[in-house]
Order: sequence, then structure tokens, then C-alpha cells
Amino acid sequence: MEKKKAMMKVQDEVIKEQLKGFKNKMLVMSGKGGVGKSTVAAYLAVGLAKKGFQVGLMDVDLHGPSIPRMLGLKGNIGSSLESKKGIPISYLPNMQVISIESLLGDKDTATIWRGPLKIGVIKQFIADIEWSNSDYLVIDCPPGTGDEPLTIAQVIPDTKAIIVTTPQEISLADVRKSINFCKQVNMGILGLVENMSGLRCPYCGKTIDIFKTNGGILTAKRAGLTLLGSLPLEPDIVQEGDDGTVAWMDNKDLPYTVNFAKIVDAVADLTK
Amino acid sequence: MEKKKAMMKVQDEVIKEQLKGFKNKMLVMSGKGGVGKSTVAAYLAVGLAKKGFQVGLMDVDLHGPSIPRMLGLKGNIGSSLESKKGIPISYLPNMQVISIESLLGDKDTATIWRGPLKIGVIKQFIADIEWSNSDYLVIDCPPGTGDEPLTIAQVIPDTKAIIVTTPQEISLADVRKSINFCKQVNMGILGLVENMSGLRCPYCGKTIDIFKTNGGILTAKRAGLTLLGSLPLEPDIVQEGDDGTVAWMDNKDLPYTVNFAKIVDAVADLTK
Repeated sequence: MEKKKAMMKVQDEVIKEQLKGFKNKMLVMSGKGGVGKSTVAAYLAVGLAKKGFQVGLMDVDLHGPSIPRMLGLKGNIGSSLESKKGIPISYLPNMQVISIESLLGDKDTATIWRGPLKIGVIKQFIADIEWSNSDYLVIDCPPGTGDEPLTIAQVIPDTKAIIVTTPQEISLADVRKSINFCKQVNMGILGLVENMSGLRCPYCGKTIDIFKTNGGILTAKRAGLTLLGSLPLEPDIVQEGDDGTVAWMDNKDLPYTVNFAKIVDAVADLTK
Repeated sequence: MEKKKAMMKVQDEVIKEQLKGFKNKMLVMSGKGGVGKSTVAAYLAVGLAKKGFQVGLMDVDLHGPSIPRMLGLKGNIGSSLESKKGIPISYLPNMQVISIESLLGDKDTATIWRGPLKIGVIKQFIADIEWSNSDYLVIDCPPGTGDEPLTIAQVIPDTKAIIVTTPQEISLADVRKSINFCKQVNMGILGLVENMSGLRCPYCGKTIDIFKTNGGILTAKRAGLTLLGSLPLEPDIVQEGDDGTVAWMDNKDLPYTVNFAKIVDAVADLTK
């Protein structure tokens, strides 16, 4: 017991040291799943890296990690003989990624883990990985206000939250829960991203409000939060997410691309 | 310590006794969030009740419960002076519902709970609630393969899973995780529901494959599972879900209604 306590103390020191290497830490969270949280986290990391920043992307969704497929990551985490730490996957020369999927052999394995084990894994993601000194650490969190976001709040106290939502009321109720979560754990909120805000019919060109619109704007205003941006639902982007490409980022004709670039700029501005 | 152990043993006995009151137990689960799991759980419960069955609906999504809003539930859980147990909310004369939201005062409160506490609450949902003897217990679970579904698997060993998915690949990868989860914990699978499978443009009438189509059918076939049904994306149903009404169930002209009725029939058939 004493030995375990001492080991945890050492780990806490290592985590503190490692975190000094990141200038800004951002937790992408949502009260509800399926609102495109991982999409926002992955593309925000790539967007910041394409602007020239050094970026780390940490996927702490341990049950359903989407980041590796979304970015088309191949290969597993390596290990450094010298430092004995894991080497994250380099998605770009200035962007490193870590996800539980890159540590597991079979991609379809279910990680049937209870809370305490998950806390340990998240701590190891920070302590035992050879991260480069970076401008940003972007963290993709599973939905809800359970062990994962709570662990991040406690282990990385200067993290700022980016809350993702879709415009419908049921989703927004969960956003208000996320906002209350941040207040309770003293986590600053960078802003809100409204996703799936309308879909342009590819046949007739009219906009269909599947999940209604403007809910995000209203919630942001009511809660006194910055709306970082609104993203339309774009079937082509869903397809690219499945294929693991981000070619859409270079297609400046897409409203999605234009709006996403604005979000990246807003985040860079707010963290200057 | 001894006293706590004894209390837990008593609780386990009560749970066993309570569970005898339910003929069929079904866990509605998904690897990924936002696929419409709560929608399927809520409407399946109502659909079975409208067929004349006695139904209990247990919402074990403790961080982001959607059931109360979706069904427009008002009021809180009462308590019985006689049995000292909680009285679930009656949505229909033959349908009872329990959700964490009906126990909390403020609907926007974030339940910042770690795993062990959640296990305790789920157990109390069974042990300390005055359930009627029922044909069905429908359980709505948060996404993933963490504490909540694991607790259900252990506490209610004869539960059968209904896995909900959307047709795109990233979501299907998570379904394969759910299937593997069921195998590992020895939970039978009743079948798969494919949700958000295409959207009919309300302006031009053409079908837009937002999240592609047929992914669910292919996954079901590959995994040797029954496809219970496919549901289109229907903006009006999203609206009704927000408003807490199920008026669409009586509108037999909607493809969604027709398809949902088939799912209810399939479930009733498989559990006869």
C-alpha cells in the first residue's frame, strides 16, 4: 500500500512535468454523444497544425475511440528505448496523436473497463508518452460528465473546455449540464461549437433543418458563452471521416470548410 | 465493513426478487452516442405498452438522461409509505418509467459521478422502486461499454441486448465493439436497429443518404444478427422528441411509423 502510494506520487510529479510542455490545453466535450465531438476535436487539431502550431491530440474516449479512423491512422504506438516511454503517432510532422485504439491489437475489441482503470490509463497517456513541447494539447473526451472529463479536470487543472452541441432541445439540455459541470470543477470554457446546423439538399439546394437551427446561438447567448462557430451537416464530410481523409479542408468552396476555418481562427485568437 | 457487506447481500436478494417480476429484460445499447438509442428505447417501450403489454422503462443514462424530455414526463418519483420504496412515474396506465432526472430537482444539474456511485444508483433503481409485475423491462443505457452496461450485465444476467446504430462506418465499428461486449459478458443479442438511414428532402422528395445506407444490414448479416428494422431520419420526429409527444405513432402515413411498428412486432415475436 505504501509502495503504491509512493509510485502514484512519482507519477503525479511526472504528469506535472509533462504538462508544462503544453502551452494550451483544450478539452472537447459534449453532454450528449453523436454531436460530432470527435470530428471537431480531430479537425481542430489538424487545423491548428496546418496553421503552423505544434499540436498534440489525445483521445481519451476509451470505449469508442473515433480519432484513428477519422484521421486514417495506421500503426501502433512505438516505444522509446531511451526514455522507456511510448511514442505517439505522427499524423503531421508537427502533430502527434494518442488513442487507445493504437495500443490495442484488434480494432473491434471492446474495452470493458470500469472507472478506476480508465483513470489510470488517462494518467498514463500523459505520464508515459513522449510528447513534444507543443502549443496545443487537444483532448477528445467521451460524452457525459463521468470519469473521463472529471479525471482531465483534476489532472490538468488549466484545461479549457470547448463544448460541442447540435441545435435541438434535447441536445442543448445536455449542454447546460456540461456548462454546469465546468462551473463545478472550475474549468474555464473557451466557447461553444454548434454542429449539424442545417443540411443543404444536394438535389434541390434548399436547406433542411434536421435538428432545427440557432439552438446553439441561443444557448451561447443565454449562458454568456462565445459561439466559436456553426457547422452545417455535410454528407461528403461524413464520407471523408469514414475514409480517414481531410481533403475537404482544402476545398474552400464548401461552407463547412469556410466555417471550420473560422472556428480554428477563433480558438487561435482566444488562446494567443 | 462487515455490516456493509451484509447490507449489500440483502440488497442483492431484493434485486433478485424484484427481477422475477419482469418476464423479459432488454438493454438498448450502442457503442456510439447520438445514434438515437434513447429514441428507440422510449418508443419501443411505448409501442409495447400500446400493444397491451405491461412495461417498465428504466433509464440508466445517469449523466445525460433523455427519456423524461422525450416522453414529456412531469413530476418526480414519489415514495410509498407502506413499502418505503420509490414509486415510478406512470406514463401510461400499463407503463412505468424511472430516470435519474425524475429524482433530481434541477434538470440542468450535472451528475458528476464516478463509476462505483453509478453502480449503486443502478442497483437502487431495481431494488428500491415499486415496479409492477411486467412483461417487459426496457433499459436505456448510455453509449459505450463502461460501468452502466457492465452493471446491467452482472445484475440482470438474463438481459438481452438491442443494439442501435447509424449506417456510417465509424458508427458500425462501435457496433462491432458492442457485439464483442455482449459475447464477453454472455449477453444474448435480440437484434440490431439501424437508425437515421436516409432522409427524404421535404422540398423535393428525394432521399439523401446523410450517413449512407445499408451499413446496418451488412453488419447484421456479417455478424449473424437479426436486423429488427431500419428507421429513416425524420425531422418531424426530432421535433416531437423535443416536445415530448409521440403523436407520430398514430400517423400511419409516415414511413418512420410503419417501420417502427415492424420493430415492435419483431421484438414481441422474438420474446413470445
